[in-house]
Amino acid sequence: MKLICGVDLGGTKLSAALFDQKGSLIGKEIIHKHVDETTDGIVRITAELVKTLLTNNNVEFSDILGIGVGLAGHILYKKGIIITTSNFKVTFTNYPFVEKMQVHLPGVRVLLDNDANVQALGEYMYGAGRGYESMVFVTVSTGVGAGIVLNGKLLRGKNGTAGEIGHSIIEYNSRYLCTCGNYGCAMAHSSGLFLPELYKYKLESGMTSSIGLTVQNVSSFDGYLLEKGINEGDEISIAIMNESADIIGASVFNIHKMLDPDAVVLGGGLMQLGDRYMSRIKNQFKFLMQDMMDDEMEIKHWETGADAGLLGAASLLLE
Amino acid sequence: MKLICGVDLGGTKLSAALFDQKGSLIGKEIIHKHVDETTDGIVRITAELVKTLLTNNNVEFSDILGIGVGLAGHILYKKGIIITTSNFKVTFTNYPFVEKMQVHLPGVRVLLDNDANVQALGEYMYGAGRGYESMVFVTVSTGVGAGIVLNGKLLRGKNGTAGEIGHSIIEYNSRYLCTCGNYGCAMAHSSGLFLPELYKYKLESGMTSSIGLTVQNVSSFDGYLLEKGINEGDEISIAIMNESADIIGASVFNIHKMLDPDAVVLGGGLMQLGDRYMSRIKNQFKFLMQDMMDDEMEIKHWETGADAGLLGAASLLLE
Repeated sequence: MKLICGVDLGGTKLSAALFDQKGSLIGKEIIHKHVDETTDGIVRITAELVKTLLTNNNVEFSDILGIGVGLAGHILYKKGIIITTSNFKVTFTNYPFVEKMQVHLPGVRVLLDNDANVQALGEYMYGAGRGYESMVFVTVSTGVGAGIVLNGKLLRGKNGTAGEIGHSIIEYNSRYLCTCGNYGCAMAHSSGLFLPELYKYKLESGMTSSIGLTVQNVSSFDGYLLEKGINEGDEISIAIMNESADIIGASVFNIHKMLDPDAVVLGGGLMQLGDRYMSRIKNQFKFLMQDMMDDEMEIKHWETGADAGLLGAASLLLE
Repeated sequence: MKLICGVDLGGTKLSAALFDQKGSLIGKEIIHKHVDETTDGIVRITAELVKTLLTNNNVEFSDILGIGVGLAGHILYKKGIIITTSNFKVTFTNYPFVEKMQVHLPGVRVLLDNDANVQALGEYMYGAGRGYESMVFVTVSTGVGAGIVLNGKLLRGKNGTAGEIGHSIIEYNSRYLCTCGNYGCAMAHSSGLFLPELYKYKLESGMTSSIGLTVQNVSSFDGYLLEKGINEGDEISIAIMNESADIIGASVFNIHKMLDPDAVVLGGGLMQLGDRYMSRIKNQFKFLMQDMMDDEMEIKHWETGADAGLLGAASLLLE
C-alpha cells in the first residue's frame, strides 16, 4: 500500500513526514532555513525537503500517493491557491502554491489546505474523531480556528473560510478588540495572541499580579507564563484561564447549536493547560445545555498532538 | 410526472397542498379543527385532510410521490419521530409521527421535518436559494431558526437540532434571558417572542413610547404594533427594529464564519418590516466583514413566502 507524505509549513519551522495509511510514522525531517526566503524560495525549499525525506527513507515518488501541505492562511483548496498568509516574514498573496510545487515535483499530486482543516482531518482519520460521522476540531492556540468534517469530508465553504469560529461574534457588546478589527470575536476573549491584552485588562480592573507583571511588561505574558501563573496561584492567570475556557465552552455550545455534530475535538497549545482547563470548558457546555443534555455530544482532547499538522496534511490524500 | 404533497402542521392552522415537481400549486386545503385534539387525533385529522385534498383534486395516492410534513418541534428525521413540540395545546413527546400517519395511509411515503428545515429546502429548490451549492435559510419569526442546505441535502445533525442559531450565544454577558434558560441567545435579542421584553427594557432605560405603551400594558407589543410604531416614528419601536436587525446581521456573519455558504436567505414574519429592516441587516454584515468582502456571500429575501411551509414540506420528497 502506498505511503502518504505530509508537510507542515510554519513561519519558523518547516517539517515533512512519511506515514503509512494507518498513520504510523515512517520518517520525518525538520528545518528552519526557509524563514528568510521569498515565497518562491520557500516553495523550492519545501520541495527539496520532501525529496530529502524520500531519499533518506529509500522511498520513490511512485511509492507515495502524493504530498499534503498544511499552513496557516486563507486557502482555496480546489485551486491550490493561497489567498493570504500572516505568519511568514513574506506574505503569500493569491499565490498558486500547488502549481509552483509541481514545477519542482512534476507529476506528483500536491494538495494544500489550512492548518485547522488538516488537523481536523487528521483527528477524524487517526485521532479522537475516529468512528464518528461528523466532527468539529477546534484549535485553541495563538488564534482559535476550527475544521468541520461531515461524512469524512472537510466542509471548506465557498471561499475556503468555513470553520472560522475564532472570528464569530460571541460577545456583541465587548470591549475586546480582535486583530480582524471587530469587537467580541471568540478568539479575542480566549486565545494565546490576546493573553497580554487580557492580563492588562485584569490589572486595570484592580486585580494584582503575583508573578511580577505590570502594565509596562505585560507583553511578555504568554502560554508559558500563563501556566506558571496558574501553578503559582496568580489570581489573574487563573481568571484568564477560566475566562478563556468559558468562552471556548460557549463556542463549543454554539457549534453544537449550529451543526449538531457527533463530537467536538479540542486541540492546540492552550489545551496543554490540562484537565483544569478542559473541565471548565466541559462544565460551561453542560451549563448552557441545561435540560437539553439528551442531545449528546462528545467533547474530547485531541490525540494526534505533536504530529497533528504533519499527519493531518498527509491525510488530505485519503479524504 | 408524479405530484408532491406538503402538510404544514401548526398549532392553530393545519394546511395541506399538492404541487407539481416544478413547485406549481395544484390545490390546497386549510382547517383549524385539530386545535383541541389529542396527538393521535391531530394525526387522524391530518391524514383525513390529505385524503380530502386528493379527492378534491381528483388525484390518487398512486399519483403522488408521498407526503412531506413540516412542524415546529424537535424532530428525528430518519426515524420520523417528534421528540417534543411547544406550540400545540397537547405536547408530542417521543411520538412516532410517521408510523402513526401510515396507520391511516398504508403504503404511502411520509416524511417529517421541522419548519425551518422544510422552509430551507423549499427556498433551495424553488425560491431564493435556487442555483446555489450551499445555502442557509434563517427564519426571523416568533423565534429565530435556520435550515442548512449543503449540496442539495439538509444538514440535520446527530440529534436533528442542527441550525438552531436562535439559541447560539451572541452576547455572552447579556441581561436578556431566553426561554431556553440561557442569557444572550440571538433570539432573545431579536425575535417576535421577545418584543414585549425588549420594549420593557427600553421603557425602563428612560425612552418614551409614543404609541401609548407602558410597563403595565407592554405585553400587547407584537409584530403588528412594531410595524405601526416604526411607521409612526415611535423611538422605541425603531430602536427595537434596529437592535433586532443588528443581532440578525451579526448572526448572519457568524453563519458565514462557520459555514461560508454561497447564500443566506432570510424569511419569517419580521422580514415583513421590509427594506428598512433588511438594509440594516445587510449593513451590519458588511460592517463586520470589513476588508474581508472578497469573501462574497449573497443575502436574500425569501421567495416562497406564504406557501413556504407547504412547498418546503412537499420538497422533502425530492431531497
